[in-house]
Amino acid sequence: MVLQPALSGLPRGRPATESLTTVAPGASQEEIRRQNLGALLRHVHVHGPTTRAQLTSRLGLNRSTIGALAGDLVAAGLVTEDVAPSVTRRAGRPSLVVSPRSDGVYARALSIEAGKLRAARIGLGGRILDLRETVRPAGMSAVDAVGALADMVRDMERAVTADAVCVGGAVAVADTARDSDGRIRFSGPDETLRAALEAEIAVGLPFLAGDLADIAGLAEHIRGAAAGSGNLVYLHGDLGVSAGLIIDGRLVVGHQGHGGQVGHMVVNPNGRPCWCGSRGCWETEIGEAALLRHAGREPDAAGGVAEVLRAAAQGEPAATEAVRRVAEWLGFGVANLVNIINPDTVVLGGSLGEIYAAASDTVRHRLGEVALPTSWPQVQLRTAALGCDAALIGAAELAFERLLADPLNVGGAA
Amino acid sequence: MVLQPALSGLPRGRPATESLTTVAPGASQEEIRRQNLGALLRHVHVHGPTTRAQLTSRLGLNRSTIGALAGDLVAAGLVTEDVAPSVTRRAGRPSLVVSPRSDGVYARALSIEAGKLRAARIGLGGRILDLRETVRPAGMSAVDAVGALADMVRDMERAVTADAVCVGGAVAVADTARDSDGRIRFSGPDETLRAALEAEIAVGLPFLAGDLADIAGLAEHIRGAAAGSGNLVYLHGDLGVSAGLIIDGRLVVGHQGHGGQVGHMVVNPNGRPCWCGSRGCWETEIGEAALLRHAGREPDAAGGVAEVLRAAAQGEPAATEAVRRVAEWLGFGVANLVNIINPDTVVLGGSLGEIYAAASDTVRHRLGEVALPTSWPQVQLRTAALGCDAALIGAAELAFERLLADPLNVGGAA
Repeated sequence: MVLQPALSGLPRGRPATESLTTVAPGASQEEIRRQNLGALLRHVHVHGPTTRAQLTSRLGLNRSTIGALAGDLVAAGLVTEDVAPSVTRRAGRPSLVVSPRSDGVYARALSIEAGKLRAARIGLGGRILDLRETVRPAGMSAVDAVGALADMVRDMERAVTADAVCVGGAVAVADTARDSDGRIRFSGPDETLRAALEAEIAVGLPFLAGDLADIAGLAEHIRGAAAGSGNLVYLHGDLGVSAGLIIDGRLVVGHQGHGGQVGHMVVNPNGRPCWCGSRGCWETEIGEAALLRHAGREPDAAGGVAEVLRAAAQGEPAATEAVRRVAEWLGFGVANLVNIINPDTVVLGGSLGEIYAAASDTVRHRLGEVALPTSWPQVQLRTAALGCDAALIGAAELAFERLLADPLNVGGAA
Repeated sequence: MVLQPALSGLPRGRPATESLTTVAPGASQEEIRRQNLGALLRHVHVHGPTTRAQLTSRLGLNRSTIGALAGDLVAAGLVTEDVAPSVTRRAGRPSLVVSPRSDGVYARALSIEAGKLRAARIGLGGRILDLRETVRPAGMSAVDAVGALADMVRDMERAVTADAVCVGGAVAVADTARDSDGRIRFSGPDETLRAALEAEIAVGLPFLAGDLADIAGLAEHIRGAAAGSGNLVYLHGDLGVSAGLIIDGRLVVGHQGHGGQVGHMVVNPNGRPCWCGSRGCWETEIGEAALLRHAGREPDAAGGVAEVLRAAAQGEPAATEAVRRVAEWLGFGVANLVNIINPDTVVLGGSLGEIYAAASDTVRHRLGEVALPTSWPQVQLRTAALGCDAALIGAAELAFERLLADPLNVGGAA
């Protein structure tokens, strides 16, 4: 089985030896203006309302250039400029505040998760304007989910005002799914899914697709627990375990887009068979199924991970031991990733965030035993900040990327 | 122990959220010319002599621009232009061939390896012009090696003609070394080493320092077994085991420069204690010491890895079993890296290259058992092409980078 690149439609890196970035003469002034417009819009998109004075110092441009750029973005309907109430009282001319037009410019963000389907309209600046959710039944493939997602999008679009502009959309797809017979299998994004979404939902607009852990990691990196991190491992646990990797500030997904399949790093060669065909994969030790098994629960026990964590908090021995054991293996595997990648931050999301919150001392102790003393003391371990919305927020970030790269040249459609 | 960033002095990536690449108005025409000069010089540096006609099509610039750029580079003494003998016979005006001036423009490349010290003068285009080598005794730290390296450099400089220009230098440092009592310890590059080299060898010129596996991997990526690869895992075995990672075409070294310490990925939780303080590290299963131990040799047996491989080729049972066992664990660990990083190419260098050459079927079989079926069938496994010169060639590539980024503004010193 060979999937399409997981981040379909996104630009990919080129080999260093081929970095023949020749620039055609003549295009330069336009190129500079485009870059500066993008830098200004990106700043207010990520950091929120910002005064012209702050933009002048943070972007390293002079006042008149900032004024002209902001004026262009106001004219394009992408930002607003207002006098800040707190600023008017000061002496001298008040600095205008530039804000993203969250209500007027939005992306369609979708997620196809292990057990649910979600759709949102997310405004520039990362604000969730509207959101729908429905159940994803076992056995429903990602492509089968397009109809339900399209219904939710159409329902949301009824409330959109005539002057609002949609800049595109993206979908985050969990890379494992449950078949109707209960078995787990791979189910990442592919070109078929992307084409179906473009046909059903985003006529005339680009639609991007990526792995859920990659996209949720991007969201945590841009506006979550890892804001400012240059090298991030975002670990996501649901049915499976996978990672989103930000390296030197950029999301990386590998040659075919399958990078970050850390759930299938073998940590216990004598461990249990994994559904992937191997044995002793990290997922067999820290996945939701492992926690339930160690705690003596059925694989489909009501409440799942949360119930076991509650029981452990109340002192139930089997649950306590299950949490301890999973936390040990969590620290062990994080140590391997720290040694391989040397991140500054590891963010734990989904079920792994809950387990870390309940047993962080155990995780950190095991991490310290296994990871190199040169690397792990400087690693920040954090639980995800954006919770279950990370995938949708990250999908919107993907969709906004084209606008931020060239603010005045992105045609929208309602 | 906290080391300095391993690639001291190199520009590092910035978080995506901070990609505020504002361009100052006015600098544009100069910036375009600089980029185009760099692109042309990089092309002939990597690909060798190239006709103006080929450059026109490969760089996407018109004939007159290529002619002007080549003229500037000739005037600066960086390239030569000649009529190619095979071209003169054709009809029409012959296309000039642009070649890097390997004899006139060079870098000082050094390596501090597990058991030896090497120094070379390497010309533009990657040609080794001169090379010296001496033994590195056990217990000699990287900083202690500076004197011997400086002696070799001074010796080589005596043969340099007055018009030759040195553009800088770099050193590749093996990240493990043997103490005088025989124990292995970390010994990566640090700021002290870099400062000592700048003071002793490169007065007035920048001197870069990096991990040997990173730098050898860069060399294999630019002009070795992984030329054209966008996502490369270069695995190097000597005293230790470490990796150089090229992701989306760029060398990545992690937050503090310690990325790629794959030798300390734990693969066998019940395995042998590792000198790093952990247990069952990959290095304890595939390092040179593991091969010698399995083969019943002493840790410092004469001939080392090569002797065991010869004995295995001649059918000695203990040596054969040792090679098989190391090859199994090699395939196992490569599978983990394939699942985590999804590279297009894995290059095996040092002792691991020799083991792969002797037992590639075993390595590939185990890789296929452990790695995800989505990822491994597309991975190219190769032995290193540049052999023991990879570290020096890669160090020269680091040193040339500044010249290639801005060909006419790099001051040199003889």
